[in-house]
Amino acid sequence: MKVGFIGLGAMGSAMASNLIKAGHEVTVWNRSPGATEPLVSLGAKAVRSADRAAQGEVLFSMLANDQAARDIFFAGDLLSGMDKGTIHVNHATISLALARELAQAHAQHGLEYVAAPVFGRPDVAAAGKLNILAAGKPAVIERVRPLLDAMGSRIWPLGEAPERANVVKIAGNFMLGAAIESMAEASALARAHGVSAADFLEVMTSTLFAAPAYQGYGKLIAEQRYTPAGFALPLGYKDIGLALAAADASRVPLPLAGLLRDSLLEALSAGDENVDWSILAQVAARRAHLDERGL
Amino acid sequence: MKVGFIGLGAMGSAMASNLIKAGHEVTVWNRSPGATEPLVSLGAKAVRSADRAAQGEVLFSMLANDQAARDIFFAGDLLSGMDKGTIHVNHATISLALARELAQAHAQHGLEYVAAPVFGRPDVAAAGKLNILAAGKPAVIERVRPLLDAMGSRIWPLGEAPERANVVKIAGNFMLGAAIESMAEASALARAHGVSAADFLEVMTSTLFAAPAYQGYGKLIAEQRYTPAGFALPLGYKDIGLALAAADASRVPLPLAGLLRDSLLEALSAGDENVDWSILAQVAARRAHLDERGL
Amino acid sequence: MKVGFIGLGAMGSAMASNLIKAGHEVTVWNRSPGATEPLVSLGAKAVRSADRAAQGEVLFSMLANDQAARDIFFAGDLLSGMDKGTIHVNHATISLALARELAQAHAQHGLEYVAAPVFGRPDVAAAGKLNILAAGKPAVIERVRPLLDAMGSRIWPLGEAPERANVVKIAGNFMLGAAIESMAEASALARAHGVSAADFLEVMTSTLFAAPAYQGYGKLIAEQRYTPAGFALPLGYKDIGLALAAADASRVPLPLAGLLRDSLLEALSAGDENVDWSILAQVAARRAHLDERGL
Amino acid sequence: MKVGFIGLGAMGSAMASNLIKAGHEVTVWNRSPGATEPLVSLGAKAVRSADRAAQGEVLFSMLANDQAARDIFFAGDLLSGMDKGTIHVNHATISLALARELAQAHAQHGLEYVAAPVFGRPDVAAAGKLNILAAGKPAVIERVRPLLDAMGSRIWPLGEAPERANVVKIAGNFMLGAAIESMAEASALARAHGVSAADFLEVMTSTLFAAPAYQGYGKLIAEQRYTPAGFALPLGYKDIGLALAAADASRVPLPLAGLLRDSLLEALSAGDENVDWSILAQVAARRAHLDERGL
Repeated sequence: MKVGFIGLGAMGSAMASNLIKAGHEVTVWNRSPGATEPLVSLGAKAVRSADRAAQGEVLFSMLANDQAARDIFFAGDLLSGMDKGTIHVNHATISLALARELAQAHAQHGLEYVAAPVFGRPDVAAAGKLNILAAGKPAVIERVRPLLDAMGSRIWPLGEAPERANVVKIAGNFMLGAAIESMAEASALARAHGVSAADFLEVMTSTLFAAPAYQGYGKLIAEQRYTPAGFALPLGYKDIGLALAAADASRVPLPLAGLLRDSLLEALSAGDENVDWSILAQVAARRAHLDERGL
Repeated sequence: MKVGFIGLGAMGSAMASNLIKAGHEVTVWNRSPGATEPLVSLGAKAVRSADRAAQGEVLFSMLANDQAARDIFFAGDLLSGMDKGTIHVNHATISLALARELAQAHAQHGLEYVAAPVFGRPDVAAAGKLNILAAGKPAVIERVRPLLDAMGSRIWPLGEAPERANVVKIAGNFMLGAAIESMAEASALARAHGVSAADFLEVMTSTLFAAPAYQGYGKLIAEQRYTPAGFALPLGYKDIGLALAAADASRVPLPLAGLLRDSLLEALSAGDENVDWSILAQVAARRAHLDERGL
Repeated sequence: MKVGFIGLGAMGSAMASNLIKAGHEVTVWNRSPGATEPLVSLGAKAVRSADRAAQGEVLFSMLANDQAARDIFFAGDLLSGMDKGTIHVNHATISLALARELAQAHAQHGLEYVAAPVFGRPDVAAAGKLNILAAGKPAVIERVRPLLDAMGSRIWPLGEAPERANVVKIAGNFMLGAAIESMAEASALARAHGVSAADFLEVMTSTLFAAPAYQGYGKLIAEQRYTPAGFALPLGYKDIGLALAAADASRVPLPLAGLLRDSLLEALSAGDENVDWSILAQVAARRAHLDERGL
Repeated sequence: MKVGFIGLGAMGSAMASNLIKAGHEVTVWNRSPGATEPLVSLGAKAVRSADRAAQGEVLFSMLANDQAARDIFFAGDLLSGMDKGTIHVNHATISLALARELAQAHAQHGLEYVAAPVFGRPDVAAAGKLNILAAGKPAVIERVRPLLDAMGSRIWPLGEAPERANVVKIAGNFMLGAAIESMAEASALARAHGVSAADFLEVMTSTLFAAPAYQGYGKLIAEQRYTPAGFALPLGYKDIGLALAAADASRVPLPLAGLLRDSLLEALSAGDENVDWSILAQVAARRAHLDERGL
């Protein structure tokens, strides 16, 4: 199939490479051009503007945040130049407000729109084993399913309204943050009573919490290894902000998300943004002055 | 081996039955006598007072809470009547303060003491697949290891000071509560945007959170099935109280535990105590008035 | 002096009337025209567009929120039509982000800008006894001081950068919300032990908390009288949102503001927006199921 | 009147001195004896045991906390030696649980009991201007009213059950803590935007919050002067603990009290206990790293 892919960060590049390997004809574009090279060497065609990547049957996008998406789709007016009936599969984690605006704009331009945020880190994306949430017209999802299958191990259809996939992604990332905060506080308590975070988390992540989310972040906390960032602190803060914005729009109190917001802000105010958001464990330890107390 | 077991609730009975099945000579006692019958039919000997169950080489206890333990070990002066060198393996979830008092009292009476709280529900206990945390003298733990192996699939040695096992249990139960609150709030957010808790939690507990803690409680939340209680609300509240008491003693702020305390209190104030503590999902939904709004 | 006043809600009307009574020549404009009539009867001149109200030496504005200000000053391009050197005194409670944008835009147009948010309800405004926070160039503030004196009992100069006055207003309204939440929770606790909110609050607001903020809202809580709204719930929610936005921009954790956000959201989710934000007392009582328990 | 006074800390001494000055025959006792001397020089009679101070018509007590009261009234069995009909006026801030136990014990011994906690610091006590909360039999309160009038500017009768006075005191101290936290966070926000805590709090405590609670603590925060402690951090923490215990007993969620608990714990974990509880302002500033950022 002839497709385009725009937004070639660590995630987008890994996903696009799997489309190429699956035999599709992939045109790629990225704001900063260097990112296209490895994909070109795999067989992709690099183009100089986003609109040229949008001339295939399907356009995939994996942009960093709302602002990047607004710049390209609205300010850059990408949709006007696309052929009627083209399908846009948006993998980004964006706000529900933008999700609705995009769905509406695509409909107005006669384009098809599928919201398809993913769970999984770059290494999972490279292995083609993402969990892909998908919301949009069932027939449209069926048409792109072979493409999604090249990138993910499982597709989770979530209904027709695109924002349904986005809210699951947002609520899921909130749960990730909660899991980190929970390990952060519990480990501080264990440490204060002489049990190292490593010993404590080994028990927990081998038993009740033997799940990817806990094992991945638990390892970082046990080793106090917050760089390089697997998922950077400002991105985690942004995603909790998306949860709070969704909560605001739908009038749903989320006290745990509010707590996370403040813990993340406390970490951010320390000034270093190039750390993993599991740095929350350091925040919890600092609040208890564990280092100063030799605990 | 000749051993005793006191405290025959759902957990204690299941654990004692595995000791019997493993061929040990087990004497059992419970405050309310009916609980001994099934074990007698398996081959246990029931006695009329706790001190007679404490005459073997090892005494196991699984009492409901601090008060029950204080009643029997301190007010009932059980320790004075035990032979020097007898080992007491205490499986209960108790406060760190009591853990320390018990360790000291056993030493004063020339008795050995092992703190051995467990992770696992009654069905896991019945299957002999508990995770058993164990803290005490290494040589003593080695002596009881065959007995523990009859009850658990894995023994986690946590050092010599008994309270070390208790703090891991307390911090672990706090993490369970946090996981429930996290699912409760995230599900309320998903529901408010048209995605059912069942659909949302199926995705999450099949992917990032594919762990026993999330799958077990996630199912209850998805089905809004809070009775019969797997882990009763007042017990969950008690355990968060143990975490807060430990935090108080060691000067460790635990904002997430404080948040859980209030959510559990909100559930308790509604009056029904015979519900699972995953009723927190109902609290989160009620705060957002989801039912009234038809969401 | 020849001045204009735009934004004639309860506050703006009361303030403008005091300018008229002080002998100034006041031109008034409001989006919905009915509001100008009482002022015309006092001697004001009503005009049909905001730009005609902006032709005097000083323009006062008291618009409802960021959106209204953006509509008029930016979308409506009001500043382009004003004479160089005209002073704009902005009394509205707006975000710090907008405060900075407005300051910059005025400078670009050669206009003077004073941020002058106020503390005080409409009855205080009518009595000319507002507390007026003022930030801007000292010489400019001196020129408008006689006008401000007609509206307030005290002017609080807060330096040159306009946002300084806005942050004080925002932080102050956050303190108001905190005072309400504090009375709400404390009254629920008193009620649960047999002391009515009225009895409890009479003691507190006559002694340690004998201040306008506590006495005003305390009375509403004691009488459970949340309508008509003195300060409407959605406005309170908006203002806590301004505090959280300021906290976000400056990386300052505000856990108490986060708590307020969720309590206000809980009230808003119940559906009735025409209530005073002291409805937080009802939220606190409902969480404890006080009515159901006959407490 | 012939009365006794036990518990001669800063508050008790000041209160007892006013009874002496009012012409009463006062017998005093304190655990550590030095405290009696200044009162003896005013005309009091010092005795060597609490029971000898309890031989007058009325016994006043102002003990530090629950433990001190339990030591003297229960472990020390003071009540057994008192004449039937003697009135005990207990000014201490104690738990509701102890309040009920004491009321019952007095009734069993044929003694009268009045709970009379006070609002006011030592300097207010010295001036005889305390606000005295009083709960007990109306006739008994009337009998001691002349004595209370010597110590306070106003007596607040709160009904017959003694715990009613205690819950008002506890809920009131919770409101004090909330006021401090509110000023702490709001001041951190102001500072981060260039307005000093002193400038910000001057506006607030002169206007909406012109009340003793805000002016007293506001001054300490503005000057960052946390020693000597007016109300020591551990006492504040204890009092929030009393509020949480009362909330636990009556099933009333108090999220703001939970937040205060954690902020106070964070301050306590830093190790210095000889500071005023308005040190919460330092905690709020540290969370935002204001000093490190030069804000």
